[in-house]
Amino acid sequence: MNESIVLKRRSVRKFKSTPVPRELIDRLLEAGCAAPSACNRRTVDFYVITGEEKLKEISDCGRFTKMKAPLIILVVGNLSRALPLQLSDYWIHDAGAASENILIEATALGLGSCWCGVHPQKRMMQKISALLSLSDKQIPFSLIKIGYPDEFPEAHSGIDEKRVHFVE
Amino acid sequence: MNESIVLKRRSVRKFKSTPVPRELIDRLLEAGCAAPSACNRRTVDFYVITGEEKLKEISDCGRFTKMKAPLIILVVGNLSRALPLQLSDYWIHDAGAASENILIEATALGLGSCWCGVHPQKRMMQKISALLSLSDKQIPFSLIKIGYPDEFPEAHSGIDEKRVHFVE
Repeated sequence: MNESIVLKRRSVRKFKSTPVPRELIDRLLEAGCAAPSACNRRTVDFYVITGEEKLKEISDCGRFTKMKAPLIILVVGNLSRALPLQLSDYWIHDAGAASENILIEATALGLGSCWCGVHPQKRMMQKISALLSLSDKQIPFSLIKIGYPDEFPEAHSGIDEKRVHFVE
Repeated sequence: MNESIVLKRRSVRKFKSTPVPRELIDRLLEAGCAAPSACNRRTVDFYVITGEEKLKEISDCGRFTKMKAPLIILVVGNLSRALPLQLSDYWIHDAGAASENILIEATALGLGSCWCGVHPQKRMMQKISALLSLSDKQIPFSLIKIGYPDEFPEAHSGIDEKRVHFVE
Protein backbone atom coordinates (compact mmCIF):
# COMPACT_ATOMS: atom_id res chain seq x y z
CA MET A 1 0.00 0.00 0.00
CA ASN A 2 1.14 3.57 -0.62
CA GLU A 3 2.59 5.70 2.13
CA SER A 4 -0.21 7.62 3.82
CA ILE A 5 0.05 11.37 3.40
CA VAL A 6 -2.29 11.75 6.39
CA LEU A 7 0.20 9.94 8.64
CA LYS A 8 3.10 11.92 7.20
CA ARG A 9 1.56 15.24 8.30
CA ARG A 10 3.22 16.58 11.44
CA SER A 11 3.16 20.01 13.08
CA VAL A 12 6.20 21.94 11.87
CA ARG A 13 7.31 25.04 13.77
CA LYS A 14 10.64 25.82 12.05
CA PHE A 15 10.56 27.05 8.49
CA LYS A 16 13.05 28.20 5.89
CA SER A 17 12.59 31.82 4.85
CA THR A 18 12.13 30.85 1.16
CA PRO A 19 8.75 32.18 -0.03
CA VAL A 20 6.02 29.68 -0.96
CA PRO A 21 5.42 30.00 -4.73
CA ARG A 22 2.04 31.33 -5.78
CA GLU A 23 1.29 28.09 -7.63
CA LEU A 24 1.53 26.15 -4.37
CA ILE A 25 -0.51 28.74 -2.47
CA ASP A 26 -3.23 28.19 -5.06
CA ARG A 27 -3.06 24.43 -4.48
CA LEU A 28 -3.52 24.98 -0.73
CA LEU A 29 -6.52 27.24 -1.34
CA GLU A 30 -8.03 24.69 -3.70
CA ALA A 31 -7.68 22.07 -0.94
CA GLY A 32 -9.31 24.41 1.58
CA CYS A 33 -12.20 25.16 -0.76
CA ALA A 34 -12.68 21.40 -1.37
CA ALA A 35 -13.45 20.65 2.29
CA PRO A 36 -16.93 19.40 3.10
CA SER A 37 -19.34 21.86 4.74
CA ALA A 38 -22.65 21.25 6.47
CA CYS A 39 -25.46 21.44 3.87
CA ASN A 40 -22.80 22.73 1.47
CA ARG A 41 -23.01 26.23 2.97
CA ARG A 42 -19.27 26.82 2.35
CA THR A 43 -19.04 29.05 5.38
CA VAL A 44 -15.25 29.33 5.28
CA ASP A 45 -13.24 32.31 3.99
CA PHE A 46 -9.45 32.24 3.56
CA TYR A 47 -7.02 35.10 4.15
CA VAL A 48 -3.57 34.67 2.60
CA ILE A 49 -0.86 36.69 4.33
CA THR A 50 2.62 37.01 2.81
CA GLY A 51 3.82 40.55 3.58
CA GLU A 52 6.56 40.69 6.21
CA GLU A 53 5.00 43.40 8.35
CA LYS A 54 1.51 41.87 8.38
CA LEU A 55 2.97 38.41 9.09
CA LYS A 56 4.65 39.83 12.18
CA GLU A 57 1.57 41.73 13.36
CA ILE A 58 -0.65 38.65 13.04
CA SER A 59 1.97 36.39 14.64
CA ASP A 60 2.18 38.72 17.64
CA CYS A 61 -1.55 38.26 18.35
CA GLY A 62 -1.10 34.99 20.26
CA ARG A 63 1.25 33.41 22.78
CA PHE A 64 1.98 30.34 20.66
CA THR A 65 1.91 31.89 17.20
CA LYS A 66 5.19 33.78 17.19
CA MET A 67 7.32 31.34 15.14
CA LYS A 68 8.46 32.77 11.80
CA ALA A 69 6.94 31.45 8.58
CA PRO A 70 6.76 33.03 5.11
CA LEU A 71 3.03 32.29 4.75
CA ILE A 72 -0.05 32.38 6.96
CA ILE A 73 -3.44 31.19 5.80
CA LEU A 74 -6.10 32.39 8.19
CA VAL A 75 -9.24 30.23 8.16
CA VAL A 76 -12.32 32.35 8.92
CA GLY A 77 -15.93 31.34 9.51
CA ASN A 78 -18.36 33.61 7.68
CA LEU A 79 -21.66 33.62 9.56
CA SER A 80 -23.44 35.36 6.71
CA ARG A 81 -23.52 31.92 5.03
CA ALA A 82 -24.18 29.88 8.20
CA LEU A 83 -27.18 27.63 8.78
CA PRO A 84 -29.98 28.99 11.02
CA LEU A 85 -30.40 28.66 14.77
CA GLN A 86 -28.77 25.73 16.58
CA LEU A 87 -27.23 24.58 13.30
CA SER A 88 -25.33 27.86 12.88
CA ASP A 89 -22.45 26.40 14.90
CA TYR A 90 -21.72 23.97 12.07
CA TRP A 91 -19.41 26.65 10.68
CA ILE A 92 -16.96 25.31 13.31
CA HIS A 93 -17.06 21.83 11.74
CA ASP A 94 -16.59 23.39 8.30
CA ALA A 95 -13.60 25.42 9.46
CA GLY A 96 -12.00 22.36 11.06
CA ALA A 97 -12.33 20.35 7.86
CA ALA A 98 -10.91 23.21 5.75
CA SER A 99 -7.97 23.69 8.12
CA GLU A 100 -7.04 20.00 8.08
CA ASN A 101 -7.33 19.87 4.28
CA ILE A 102 -4.78 22.67 4.01
CA LEU A 103 -2.37 20.88 6.37
CA ILE A 104 -2.59 17.62 4.43
CA GLU A 105 -2.22 19.28 1.03
CA ALA A 106 0.79 21.19 2.38
CA THR A 107 2.37 17.87 3.38
CA ALA A 108 1.68 16.45 -0.09
CA LEU A 109 3.40 19.49 -1.64
CA GLY A 110 6.53 19.12 0.52
CA LEU A 111 5.60 22.04 2.76
CA GLY A 112 5.46 22.13 6.54
CA SER A 113 2.53 23.60 8.46
CA CYS A 114 1.19 24.25 11.94
CA TRP A 115 -2.46 24.80 12.91
CA CYS A 116 -2.62 27.48 15.62
CA GLY A 117 -6.02 27.84 17.26
CA VAL A 118 -7.61 31.29 17.36
CA HIS A 119 -11.34 30.81 18.11
CA PRO A 120 -12.60 30.77 20.86
CA GLN A 121 -9.91 32.99 22.38
CA LYS A 122 -11.73 36.33 22.42
CA ARG A 123 -8.80 38.71 22.76
CA MET A 124 -6.83 37.06 19.97
CA MET A 125 -9.92 37.00 17.75
CA GLN A 126 -10.48 40.72 18.30
CA LYS A 127 -6.87 41.63 17.52
CA ILE A 128 -6.78 39.62 14.29
CA SER A 129 -10.19 40.90 13.19
CA ALA A 130 -8.96 44.47 13.64
CA LEU A 131 -5.69 43.84 11.74
CA LEU A 132 -7.51 42.33 8.76
CA SER A 133 -10.61 44.58 8.94
CA LEU A 134 -12.92 41.56 9.18
CA SER A 135 -16.66 42.19 9.33
CA ASP A 136 -18.65 41.35 12.46
CA LYS A 137 -19.92 38.23 10.64
CA GLN A 138 -16.39 36.87 10.14
CA ILE A 139 -14.82 34.82 12.93
CA PRO A 140 -11.11 33.97 12.80
CA PHE A 141 -10.88 30.23 13.50
CA SER A 142 -7.32 29.06 12.90
CA LEU A 143 -4.08 30.60 11.81
CA ILE A 144 -2.01 28.18 9.75
CA LYS A 145 1.73 28.78 9.51
CA ILE A 146 3.21 27.40 6.31
CA GLY A 147 6.61 27.22 4.65
CA TYR A 148 9.39 24.90 3.54
CA PRO A 149 10.22 22.90 6.65
CA ASP A 150 13.45 23.34 8.57
CA GLU A 151 12.66 20.43 10.91
CA PHE A 152 11.43 16.97 9.94
CA PRO A 153 9.41 15.13 12.58
CA GLU A 154 8.84 11.42 11.89
CA ALA A 155 5.55 10.22 10.43
CA HIS A 156 2.84 9.03 12.84
CA SER A 157 2.13 5.35 13.17
CA GLY A 158 -0.05 3.05 15.19
CA ILE A 159 -3.39 3.25 16.92
CA ASP A 160 -3.82 4.76 20.35
CA GLU A 161 -5.75 1.74 21.68
CA LYS A 162 -7.18 3.46 24.76
CA ARG A 163 -9.05 5.93 22.52
CA VAL A 164 -10.66 3.26 20.33
CA HIS A 165 -13.81 1.27 21.09
CA PHE A 166 -15.35 -1.46 18.95
CA VAL A 167 -19.11 -1.91 19.01
CA GLU A 168 -20.58 -4.97 17.31
CA MET B 1 2.38 16.81 -9.89
CA ASN B 2 0.50 13.90 -8.34
CA GLU B 3 -3.26 13.85 -8.18
CA SER B 4 -4.40 15.39 -4.90
CA ILE B 5 -6.16 12.94 -2.60
CA VAL B 6 -7.64 15.94 -0.77
CA LEU B 7 -9.38 17.10 -3.97
CA LYS B 8 -10.52 13.56 -4.75
CA ARG B 9 -12.46 13.32 -1.46
CA ARG B 10 -16.19 13.78 -1.99
CA SER B 11 -19.19 13.04 0.23
CA VAL B 12 -20.52 9.61 -0.73
CA ARG B 13 -24.02 8.61 0.38
CA LYS B 14 -24.49 5.32 -1.50
CA PHE B 15 -22.42 2.34 -0.43
CA LYS B 16 -22.08 -1.31 -1.40
CA SER B 17 -23.01 -3.71 1.39
CA THR B 18 -19.53 -5.36 1.29
CA PRO B 19 -17.97 -5.10 4.77
CA VAL B 20 -14.88 -2.94 5.21
CA PRO B 21 -11.97 -5.28 6.07
CA ARG B 22 -10.49 -4.93 9.55
CA GLU B 23 -7.11 -4.01 8.08
CA LEU B 24 -8.64 -0.93 6.43
CA ILE B 25 -10.60 -0.01 9.58
CA ASP B 26 -7.26 0.01 11.41
CA ARG B 27 -5.80 2.33 8.76
CA LEU B 28 -8.72 4.73 9.26
CA LEU B 29 -8.22 4.69 13.03
CA GLU B 30 -4.51 5.30 12.60
CA ALA B 31 -5.36 8.34 10.48
CA GLY B 32 -7.82 9.60 13.10
CA CYS B 33 -5.26 9.15 15.89
CA ALA B 34 -2.65 11.03 13.80
CA ALA B 35 -4.69 14.25 13.69
CA PRO B 36 -3.24 17.29 15.43
CA SER B 37 -4.76 18.30 18.76
CA ALA B 38 -4.41 21.49 20.75
CA CYS B 39 -1.41 21.15 23.12
CA ASN B 40 -1.36 17.46 22.12
CA ARG B 41 -4.24 16.70 24.50
CA ARG B 42 -5.59 14.00 22.13
CA THR B 43 -9.13 14.66 23.26
CA VAL B 44 -10.74 12.48 20.59
CA ASP B 45 -12.14 8.97 21.13
CA PHE B 46 -13.32 6.74 18.26
CA TYR B 47 -16.25 4.30 18.28
CA VAL B 48 -16.25 1.73 15.49
CA ILE B 49 -19.71 0.36 14.70
CA THR B 50 -20.14 -2.64 12.40
CA GLY B 51 -23.07 -4.67 13.79
CA GLU B 52 -26.22 -4.44 11.68
CA GLU B 53 -28.60 -3.68 14.53
CA LYS B 54 -26.41 -1.02 16.13
CA LEU B 55 -25.73 0.56 12.72
CA LYS B 56 -29.48 0.95 12.23
CA GLU B 57 -30.11 2.31 15.73
CA ILE B 58 -27.37 4.92 15.37
CA SER B 59 -28.44 5.83 11.82
CA ASP B 60 -31.99 6.45 13.05
CA CYS B 61 -30.78 9.11 15.49
CA GLY B 62 -30.66 11.91 12.91
CA ARG B 63 -32.67 13.20 9.97
CA PHE B 64 -29.77 13.08 7.51
CA THR B 65 -27.97 9.99 8.78
CA LYS B 66 -30.28 7.25 7.54
CA MET B 67 -28.33 6.10 4.47
CA LYS B 68 -27.05 2.54 4.74
CA ALA B 69 -23.33 1.91 5.16
CA PRO B 70 -21.47 -1.13 6.54
CA LEU B 71 -19.32 0.97 8.87
CA ILE B 72 -19.75 3.99 11.11
CA ILE B 73 -16.90 5.65 12.94
CA LEU B 74 -18.23 7.96 15.61
CA VAL B 75 -15.81 10.76 16.53
CA VAL B 76 -16.23 11.72 20.19
CA GLY B 77 -14.68 14.53 22.21
CA ASN B 78 -13.52 13.37 25.63
CA LEU B 79 -13.58 16.33 28.00
CA SER B 80 -11.63 14.43 30.65
CA ARG B 81 -8.54 15.22 28.52
CA ALA B 82 -9.58 18.77 27.49
CA LEU B 83 -7.62 21.93 28.24
CA PRO B 84 -8.86 24.14 31.11
CA LEU B 85 -11.35 27.03 31.03
CA GLN B 86 -11.82 28.96 27.78
CA LEU B 87 -9.40 26.58 26.02
CA SER B 88 -11.57 23.54 26.79
CA ASP B 89 -13.50 24.16 23.56
CA TYR B 90 -10.41 23.23 21.55
CA TRP B 91 -11.71 19.66 21.67
CA ILE B 92 -13.96 20.83 18.80
CA HIS B 93 -10.92 21.74 16.66
CA ASP B 94 -9.35 18.38 17.53
CA ALA B 95 -12.49 16.48 16.56
CA GLY B 96 -12.76 18.36 13.25
CA ALA B 97 -9.17 17.50 12.34
CA ALA B 98 -9.65 13.83 13.27
CA SER B 99 -12.88 13.60 11.25
CA GLU B 100 -11.30 15.08 8.13
CA ASN B 101 -8.25 12.81 8.48
CA ILE B 102 -10.55 9.77 8.42
CA LEU B 103 -12.36 11.03 5.30
CA ILE B 104 -9.12 11.62 3.42
CA GLU B 105 -7.58 8.31 4.43
CA ALA B 106 -10.82 6.59 3.35
CA THR B 107 -10.45 8.22 -0.07
CA ALA B 108 -6.83 7.05 -0.29
CA LEU B 109 -7.97 3.49 0.49
CA GLY B 110 -10.67 3.48 -2.20
CA LEU B 111 -13.50 3.87 0.30
CA GLY B 112 -16.34 6.39 0.26
CA SER B 113 -17.34 8.39 3.30
CA CYS B 114 -19.75 11.03 4.55
CA TRP B 115 -19.29 13.27 7.61
CA CYS B 116 -22.65 13.70 9.34
CA GLY B 117 -22.70 16.37 12.05
CA VAL B 118 -23.93 15.39 15.51
CA HIS B 119 -22.71 18.09 17.95
CA PRO B 120 -24.25 20.60 18.73
CA GLN B 121 -27.67 18.99 18.07
CA LYS B 122 -28.68 18.17 21.65
CA ARG B 123 -31.37 15.57 21.02
CA MET B 124 -29.21 13.59 18.59
CA MET B 125 -26.26 13.77 20.99
CA GLN B 126 -28.40 12.40 23.84
CA LYS B 127 -29.75 9.52 21.76
CA ILE B 128 -26.31 8.44 20.54
CA SER B 129 -24.77 8.81 24.01
CA ALA B 130 -27.46 6.52 25.41
CA LEU B 131 -27.05 3.89 22.67
CA LEU B 132 -23.28 3.69 23.18
CA SER B 133 -23.33 4.23 26.97
CA LEU B 134 -21.00 7.22 26.70
CA SER B 135 -19.91 8.94 29.92
CA ASP B 136 -21.01 12.48 30.69
CA LYS B 137 -17.50 13.63 29.69
CA GLN B 138 -17.86 12.19 26.17
CA ILE B 139 -19.52 14.34 23.49
CA PRO B 140 -20.48 12.76 20.15
CA PHE B 141 -19.15 15.13 17.47
CA SER B 142 -19.54 13.50 14.07
CA LEU B 143 -20.83 10.25 12.69
CA ILE B 144 -18.86 9.13 9.67
CA LYS B 145 -20.51 6.68 7.27
CA ILE B 146 -17.98 4.55 5.42
CA GLY B 147 -18.03 1.78 2.84
CA TYR B 148 -17.11 0.84 -0.71
CA PRO B 149 -18.74 3.56 -2.82
CA ASP B 150 -21.72 2.88 -5.05
CA GLU B 151 -21.62 6.41 -6.50
CA PHE B 152 -18.59 8.27 -7.81
CA PRO B 153 -18.78 12.08 -7.64
CA GLU B 154 -16.09 13.92 -9.62
CA ALA B 155 -13.04 15.32 -7.86
CA HIS B 156 -13.14 18.97 -6.76
CA SER B 157 -11.16 21.55 -8.68
CA GLY B 158 -10.62 25.27 -8.66
CA ILE B 159 -10.65 28.04 -6.13
CA ASP B 160 -13.83 29.72 -4.98
CA GLU B 161 -12.48 33.25 -5.60
CA LYS B 162 -15.10 35.09 -3.57
CA ARG B 163 -13.96 33.26 -0.42
CA VAL B 164 -10.27 34.10 -0.85
CA HIS B 165 -8.52 37.32 0.17
CA PHE B 166 -4.86 38.19 -0.37
CA VAL B 167 -3.14 40.45 2.14
CA GLU B 168 0.34 41.73 1.33
